[in-house]
Amino acid sequence: MSPNELKHFLHRNVPLSQAMRVGVDLIEAERLVLSAPKAPNLNQHGTIFGGSAATLGVLAAWALLHTRLIQQAVHCKLVVQRSAMEYEAPMSGVFTATATLAAGADWDMFMAAYHAHGKARIQAQAVLHSAGQRAALFTGEFVAVREAVVTTAT
Amino acid sequence: MSPNELKHFLHRNVPLSQAMRVGVDLIEAERLVLSAPKAPNLNQHGTIFGGSAATLGVLAAWALLHTRLIQQAVHCKLVVQRSAMEYEAPMSGVFTATATLAAGADWDMFMAAYHAHGKARIQAQAVLHSAGQRAALFTGEFVAVREAVVTTAT
Repeated sequence: MSPNELKHFLHRNVPLSQAMRVGVDLIEAERLVLSAPKAPNLNQHGTIFGGSAATLGVLAAWALLHTRLIQQAVHCKLVVQRSAMEYEAPMSGVFTATATLAAGADWDMFMAAYHAHGKARIQAQAVLHSAGQRAALFTGEFVAVREAVVTTAT
Repeated sequence: MSPNELKHFLHRNVPLSQAMRVGVDLIEAERLVLSAPKAPNLNQHGTIFGGSAATLGVLAAWALLHTRLIQQAVHCKLVVQRSAMEYEAPMSGVFTATATLAAGADWDMFMAAYHAHGKARIQAQAVLHSAGQRAALFTGEFVAVREAVVTTAT
């Protein structure tokens, strides 16, 4: 999946990502970077709204896992189960979220559990930056669930 | 501050709240309820996007503290420092966030610390519901900071 394809997928399926004008800067196997501009994501202090920051974090972490799953031809339902945000510094311009697996998250075990049980959990994180400075940390636990195969009588 | 005034304040100052079409259902001293419709807050599964849910949670908790501060004539900068979301069930329609102080949060101690030091922290939470069912819990720690008084030489 190319950055442009992912951007269009997000904008088409998650209207909030379009309202935030989320862009896809980078997709690698181990790392995915989303970004968003200032104007649609402001708060009343003229800095980036905490809700926008948390949303870019969950989108980046979700997209990292989603693109890795697609690459392995796993088409499942992937949803966030719990998440946390640490706001470390205000952001006052374009901001990015760089997603990776969380420390200790094991992709191979995640895939083995998914194939064995049709359901598995994994933790991912996203570090937020603005103007070259680290500004926040998102961590999230996601659940992949095999989608029921719909069979139609012919 | 009336529900309508708060809604306009949010829409004017936090563009994401307008994109989500956030409404203000109730403002009481101890409880504040925000809501949002489905269409602008969908994900690719046809349910409410986790980022929208987390954003309604942080907005409701922030707005509860903000309106209480305004009521006590305290005009400060109020920002979220850390937050967590537990997603308990998918939401598939209009959703609400009902904010209260977190268990153990003491408003009088918060105000005393603010007046003594010009800075204080307090925890608030927001329970999310959709179609009459509880669906998620947001918890957040907020910091109130006295704003520097700007004096201009005449």
